[in-house]
Amino acid sequence: MAAVSAQKSDAVALFDALRAGSRDGRGDGISRDTYGRGEQFAHQLIADHAKRLGLETHRDHAANLFMTLPGQDRRTARLMTGSHLDSVANGGNFDGAAGVVAGLIATRSLQSLGLQPSCDITTAAIRAEESVWFQVSYIGSRSAFGMLPPGALEARRVDTGRTLADHMRDCGAAVEDVRGGKASLDASNIKAWVELHIEQAPQLVEAGKACAVGTGVPGNFRYPEVVIRGEYAHVGLPRRFRRDAVLAASDFAIGLDELWMRRDAEGRPMAFTIGRFHTDPGEHALTKVAGKMSLSLDVRAYDRIHLAQLETDVTSLALQVAHQRGVQIDLGPRASADVAPSDPLVVGALMEAAAKLAIPTMRLASPASHDTATFAVAGVPTAMLFVRNANGSHNPRESMEIDDFLQAVAVLTYWLAAEAGSMAADQ
Amino acid sequence: MAAVSAQKSDAVALFDALRAGSRDGRGDGISRDTYGRGEQFAHQLIADHAKRLGLETHRDHAANLFMTLPGQDRRTARLMTGSHLDSVANGGNFDGAAGVVAGLIATRSLQSLGLQPSCDITTAAIRAEESVWFQVSYIGSRSAFGMLPPGALEARRVDTGRTLADHMRDCGAAVEDVRGGKASLDASNIKAWVELHIEQAPQLVEAGKACAVGTGVPGNFRYPEVVIRGEYAHVGLPRRFRRDAVLAASDFAIGLDELWMRRDAEGRPMAFTIGRFHTDPGEHALTKVAGKMSLSLDVRAYDRIHLAQLETDVTSLALQVAHQRGVQIDLGPRASADVAPSDPLVVGALMEAAAKLAIPTMRLASPASHDTATFAVAGVPTAMLFVRNANGSHNPRESMEIDDFLQAVAVLTYWLAAEAGSMAADQ
Repeated sequence: MAAVSAQKSDAVALFDALRAGSRDGRGDGISRDTYGRGEQFAHQLIADHAKRLGLETHRDHAANLFMTLPGQDRRTARLMTGSHLDSVANGGNFDGAAGVVAGLIATRSLQSLGLQPSCDITTAAIRAEESVWFQVSYIGSRSAFGMLPPGALEARRVDTGRTLADHMRDCGAAVEDVRGGKASLDASNIKAWVELHIEQAPQLVEAGKACAVGTGVPGNFRYPEVVIRGEYAHVGLPRRFRRDAVLAASDFAIGLDELWMRRDAEGRPMAFTIGRFHTDPGEHALTKVAGKMSLSLDVRAYDRIHLAQLETDVTSLALQVAHQRGVQIDLGPRASADVAPSDPLVVGALMEAAAKLAIPTMRLASPASHDTATFAVAGVPTAMLFVRNANGSHNPRESMEIDDFLQAVAVLTYWLAAEAGSMAADQ
Repeated sequence: MAAVSAQKSDAVALFDALRAGSRDGRGDGISRDTYGRGEQFAHQLIADHAKRLGLETHRDHAANLFMTLPGQDRRTARLMTGSHLDSVANGGNFDGAAGVVAGLIATRSLQSLGLQPSCDITTAAIRAEESVWFQVSYIGSRSAFGMLPPGALEARRVDTGRTLADHMRDCGAAVEDVRGGKASLDASNIKAWVELHIEQAPQLVEAGKACAVGTGVPGNFRYPEVVIRGEYAHVGLPRRFRRDAVLAASDFAIGLDELWMRRDAEGRPMAFTIGRFHTDPGEHALTKVAGKMSLSLDVRAYDRIHLAQLETDVTSLALQVAHQRGVQIDLGPRASADVAPSDPLVVGALMEAAAKLAIPTMRLASPASHDTATFAVAGVPTAMLFVRNANGSHNPRESMEIDDFLQAVAVLTYWLAAEAGSMAADQ
């Protein structure tokens, strides 16, 4: 009980300090802007805490922060955990930060056991996971593996208009090393990566469980700039002459929703999101048939074949709507991310850890994106631990209970101890 | 043939002069802004032309322009024709102006017959018909009948942000008279009003006719500021938890479209337009389920009972969508305009005029709004003459052929001569 109380007070203190320094003045919202003031504050706070714990801290060329409890054998493949510290604008305190705090709480528990692990155990505080700022995914984790795509450094932050390169430099990154594809992480030297994260949906509330083991990060394809062109027309135009972009866009949205319903019924998880959806503010009017709609599309699924089928379905739907409504649909630039299924052995080990601790858990498909996908794509065995959350993320109402969090941290800690212990026994 | 050539060269010269002074530098577009520089230019040009024709010109308290060919009996009820001179931004040269030019061409033809009509024949150049500028309909014609609603003078022009009262004053209007409900027109003193206007749809292209007689101006109800509130959520939220405002708005739009299809099939003409349709630019993002949609709605039909049924249908649809998608739909402020059926005797007289001239014509339902509705609501017998136009209005591509226009003007002229002649014969 004393250990749990210490963990709880540590966690509360860290979350409170993060929140206090990240408030954005809009209700209860916090903003830890990617490679900006908010994220920088959080990195400094977490680094200071790690130093107080006596961990080795290292900032890589992309200003990612690695906090390591040294193992008996420094050269053997290490265990990694962690998450990101940035947030969306007016977001919540836990999306990302919970995984970093979890790593530090778990590490402190291992330290308090008085045992040196067989291998290094590293908690990562990753940069720039939230793609809303630069419209680029996984900037920090992909930079760590030398996998940031060409051109990303020239992306401009949506609020400041300044380039990623400039923002990275502000935060002490070695931009030329990022550009050159330098890697600070080597998949062959990482035994496994486990990321703890709040669930972005109330699936665990529904299931009545404090935490779950993720089955994988979905892959996605994205068309951030779809444009539908019909014809502007007078409100007096009869229906048969109209080429109404609003109705075409509505058909497209409802067609996707019907597709999702069918796939849900077939037990094939997917998700689509049209986050941006609008007529042209310079042209639209109360008494004018709309000639243009712009929208963004994100489609995700857990296996590659399903994702490819969905892309065919989306393209067919666009053609069908264009034909029926007499409009042109230009899907525009395409981005994609590969599926990243969890490693069955890591999932099994986490399920076993929970079972040993008598913590009720479940396997869970959660269609959000996480840095874990980068680790998986790089070839690291991965899995995720999700914590119950009633109110979604990317908003100030995230509602993670500390007791739920500590149950997931207990699973993480047990798993780290078991993995680092068994390695020692093997040698 | 000489008369027709003179009419044609007069019409071309007037349209060219109007166009030359109203170009807005955006392609072929013209902008005659309501109670602004563009409309003011057109009023001056037309007034100068009327004076050259020897017509009596009068500007009323709302700066409407009335150009009168005096009749033998100045006190008997007069015949009126005309239209408005303002345009939408980046509109075409003919929407509105054609009806004013038609009145002047017809008047000149009557003058050239050397006969004084039995009653005054007045061509009106009406102010501020286009509701896009102040979001208020029929400002000029309603002011002429003392029917401008309270508060309208405080409406702000969407581009300048200045009030209607200020803009009217700039153009020489007596704003306090407008506010006080003064009338410059008296329905009991108007025998009939006929407005010539380009058709806003290609219905006459489809029918292969140069002109048509309108069966009435539809009434409408409008909800300019509908707001749908769902819940912003992370892209990772499964479908069953979403309260997606984009999908709710799409359901609403498609539901209205299905209603329109059913009514078309039943032969009950209507139209609906969602001209503005958008997520919140301050909140929407590629990876965020949209929690809010805003839209404008205009619904119109030709009879009062149908319009009332449509309003019930729209309200039911909103409730149904709100229930199914878990959103709130706030229809917001409501505006409406009564239906304005054409007078059967005026329609009959125009059809007869066309028959006498061997000009093929037809009765036509055209769901646009016109000042004619104000005259009808005030109690004046009205009808409209529509001219063939392939490319709609409210855009620079309006395509009225002068020969089509002159056929409609011939019908108007014949009707004026017949009415003013028969009145003289009656006395």
